[in-house]
Amino acid sequence: MKKTNNRPLILVTNDDGIYAPGLKTLIEVAEKLGDVVAIAPDEGRSGMSHAITIKYPLRIKKLKEEGGTQFYSCSGTPADCVKIAINQIMDRKPDLLLSGINHGSNSSISVVYSGTMAAAIEGGLHAIPSIGLSVTDYSSKPDFSGAVLYGERIIKHTILDGLPPGVCLNVNFPKLSVDEIRGIKVCRQARGLWIEEFDKRTDPHRRDYYWLTGYFENYEPDAEDTDEWALKNNYVSVVPVRIDFSDLNAMEKLRSGYAKART
Amino acid sequence: MKKTNNRPLILVTNDDGIYAPGLKTLIEVAEKLGDVVAIAPDEGRSGMSHAITIKYPLRIKKLKEEGGTQFYSCSGTPADCVKIAINQIMDRKPDLLLSGINHGSNSSISVVYSGTMAAAIEGGLHAIPSIGLSVTDYSSKPDFSGAVLYGERIIKHTILDGLPPGVCLNVNFPKLSVDEIRGIKVCRQARGLWIEEFDKRTDPHRRDYYWLTGYFENYEPDAEDTDEWALKNNYVSVVPVRIDFSDLNAMEKLRSGYAKART
Repeated sequence: MKKTNNRPLILVTNDDGIYAPGLKTLIEVAEKLGDVVAIAPDEGRSGMSHAITIKYPLRIKKLKEEGGTQFYSCSGTPADCVKIAINQIMDRKPDLLLSGINHGSNSSISVVYSGTMAAAIEGGLHAIPSIGLSVTDYSSKPDFSGAVLYGERIIKHTILDGLPPGVCLNVNFPKLSVDEIRGIKVCRQARGLWIEEFDKRTDPHRRDYYWLTGYFENYEPDAEDTDEWALKNNYVSVVPVRIDFSDLNAMEKLRSGYAKART
Repeated sequence: MKKTNNRPLILVTNDDGIYAPGLKTLIEVAEKLGDVVAIAPDEGRSGMSHAITIKYPLRIKKLKEEGGTQFYSCSGTPADCVKIAINQIMDRKPDLLLSGINHGSNSSISVVYSGTMAAAIEGGLHAIPSIGLSVTDYSSKPDFSGAVLYGERIIKHTILDGLPPGVCLNVNFPKLSVDEIRGIKVCRQARGLWIEEFDKRTDPHRRDYYWLTGYFENYEPDAEDTDEWALKNNYVSVVPVRIDFSDLNAMEKLRSGYAKART
């Protein structure tokens, strides 16, 4: 991969797999803005979070090169894809990482479970401006027109301005047509939780098994600075995600607590 | 599971699997302080981060009940273990969640990849005071004596004082005997990165495959408020980990950037 011009070098990945329509759409957006290398899991790997493959070796396969864009599949997780792309496939570190467009929301606490966002966080760890993009539509053929229009704006802005250090973006698009979307809101992730409802079944050998199901509960539905509020009110949500998990405010509290315990 | 007394109900889990010596040690510590339910993956699931099992059903198996402590294995990830314990196994929400003791460090950026810490974060999401504990020793039989002494102190303190809201703890113990450990330091995670070095090999069918390997690079080895510094200087490190990934400071920067872009 040689940078033959001044166009940015863009790494595109996802967690729905190399054949997902959302990846194809994101590649098309990226190709307008830079030179693209696409690498994605060889099948869907949703809910993989930031898992990496340690027990098994990884395989990568060059699928095709089309209009300058290279396509690879990888046997690993989204985080593996980013690592192996940077280390084995690309001649230099990409200028931008795009992950998605995910088929399904990654707003609020879903950021924790999301392979899409793990790829973006992994990019951020490598000091690459990184954006995860998701539509709040779980179908195999969502309407991506709003994601394309607003996604391109956010990506262009990121290419020009960069991102604050230690931050990547979690972008979610409401399930609406372009005309219905009211604009972009920078937000924080809403506080909420997936309430589990395991579906217990019995197999033909009379052994129990459980399917993980559940529903999302928003703990602060009226908080206008949250991603959930933005999406419900027809905005694109942009949440800056910290790649450092330390809680600096809590440090002081804990320190004084421990100091008291000693006395 | 009935709470038959005033002892706290403690959920113990890990990512090294139900037969790991670190889990056994942590259960022994927990049994001194409360009533214990232990559930862990049926085999080692390191590097799984916050992955959840969506494609396959989960199986749980009650292995034994010993001195009041119940032992379960689960076919899923550490995060699955926490979810299914709370939803299917325990009569009420536990008062405390302990994850570990992990065989290997989860300091600095390893928090992102760690199944041990994902279980603690999952506990935090359920508003359970949660602590991940790890020794910086990857062997199958580490010296846990320091972890037991200082771990018990940290756990007792957490039972008494609770944790700041939205925070769980990432505790790492240096690879030292009890006498050599100088005490406990509350820290932030050091900035650093795992530098990948994929080991490329060729299988008997002449197809390439890659093993993920690498080494950790500490970007700030002299920063005395970091976990890496604490561990190198013979302290137990305690990092408060935020379960909300939003970067509130970056929100303002992004907002003003987007506002400018519009004008």
